Amino acid sequence: MQRNSKLSEMAEVKLLGVLPSPYVYRVIWALKLKGIPYEFVKENLSNKSPLLLKCNPVHKKIPVLVHGEKSVCESMIIVEYINEVWPQNPLLPNDLHERAVTRFWSKFADDKGSSVLKIFRTREDEMEQVKKEILEMLQAIEDHGLGDKKFFGGDQIGIADIAFGSVIHWLTVMEEGILGAKLLEAHKFPRLYSWLKNFQQAPVIKENLPDFEEAVAFYKGLREASLGRAASK
Amino acid sequence: MQRNSKLSEMAEVKLLGVLPSPYVYRVIWALKLKGIPYEFVKENLSNKSPLLLKCNPVHKKIPVLVHGEKSVCESMIIVEYINEVWPQNPLLPNDLHERAVTRFWSKFADDKGSSVLKIFRTREDEMEQVKKEILEMLQAIEDHGLGDKKFFGGDQIGIADIAFGSVIHWLTVMEEGILGAKLLEAHKFPRLYSWLKNFQQAPVIKENLPDFEEAVAFYKGLREASLGRAASK
Repeated sequence: MQRNSKLSEMAEVKLLGVLPSPYVYRVIWALKLKGIPYEFVKENLSNKSPLLLKCNPVHKKIPVLVHGEKSVCESMIIVEYINEVWPQNPLLPNDLHERAVTRFWSKFADDKGSSVLKIFRTREDEMEQVKKEILEMLQAIEDHGLGDKKFFGGDQIGIADIAFGSVIHWLTVMEEGILGAKLLEAHKFPRLYSWLKNFQQAPVIKENLPDFEEAVAFYKGLREASLGRAASK
Repeated sequence: MQRNSKLSEMAEVKLLGVLPSPYVYRVIWALKLKGIPYEFVKENLSNKSPLLLKCNPVHKKIPVLVHGEKSVCESMIIVEYINEVWPQNPLLPNDLHERAVTRFWSKFADDKGSSVLKIFRTREDEMEQVKKEILEMLQAIEDHGLGDKKFFGGDQIGIADIAFGSVIHWLTVMEEGILGAKLLEAHKFPRLYSWLKNFQQAPVIKENLPDFEEAVAFYKGLREASLGRAASK
């Protein structure tokens, strides 16, 4: 039976997602860094496909990676799965303690980074609290996350860079499109600012970033729709 | 220099924690399942030790694992670290897709399980919402997490069992000490109920559960202190 066949590195890879979701970009970057071809399957979140509902019955969210007959959910769990299935260009250090530190920062990005996506649905009078949370997150990374390293795991992009890459890149989109001011100021967060430049200039990332102006317009539109709905409730 | 010496499986292991914290028990179970001797270093959370602040400067929380000269923070990242350093009695399946599914449920326990610890600081008039969140979590596990398996990863206790073990065991403490009623009813959640019995009866877990009556008394005390503080604000 095909269902019971051994999962192979060569099985067909599909990515169920919506663009420009920052969580979907994490998976795109991991697949591109590994050099794995895949088919992008565009989802409609207001009319979710039977495939999405079957593959992610618990959260019903994108991204989902479909690999052969099996599926994996949750962006950073997909990234770890990709790293284990295709060992080339490793996304975790070999040293076991450094691996744990990298996973710590990846989890930190997942736990705290959701503040950034709050921006587009937060009313002006509650925005100061969201900004405060984001500044605290940036300060923790600046003080403890990077040291003098180019990337979180050292010289190569790894899982913590992928996790923060989406958070911090989307912060620059929100700054431009919604806040109208910078939170990530180069003189306040020099290590983090330098890391962002390194990340965005890495060839695989540079070729696979969403169009900045389109992303700004998209989140401006989402904000208007979201606050409009809230006002008309 | 000692600081730069290669981290060895034989290096001294210390666990910084407070009993009966459910997050600390996750680490205790992982160390016991691996058969690793360790020193428990009791922390005072109202006067945190310099060692805790040095080892976990970002969150300043327990548990922290100190292994030789290095430290690891966040309970489930510590459990993955322990699993990688000491490969005996593996806590993740060998199959890469099953590993991803196990990590999915471990993350689910971390993300949703915090509702259980909310119980002791939630006022009566807000308790229905917390109960609703917990029942949704239980239903998702019942419907999608276990199937006919003894444990999340199959026949052996693994990281998802450790993650949920603390959440669900503490739920039984909160039911007894605070709610005065069962949420995890055997006839509503037969698979999950059966899993809990399997988990609690596994020898290593059974020998390393907190004393039930002491835990009930502890969380009753915490609730009174927490609500008392809220009322006097």
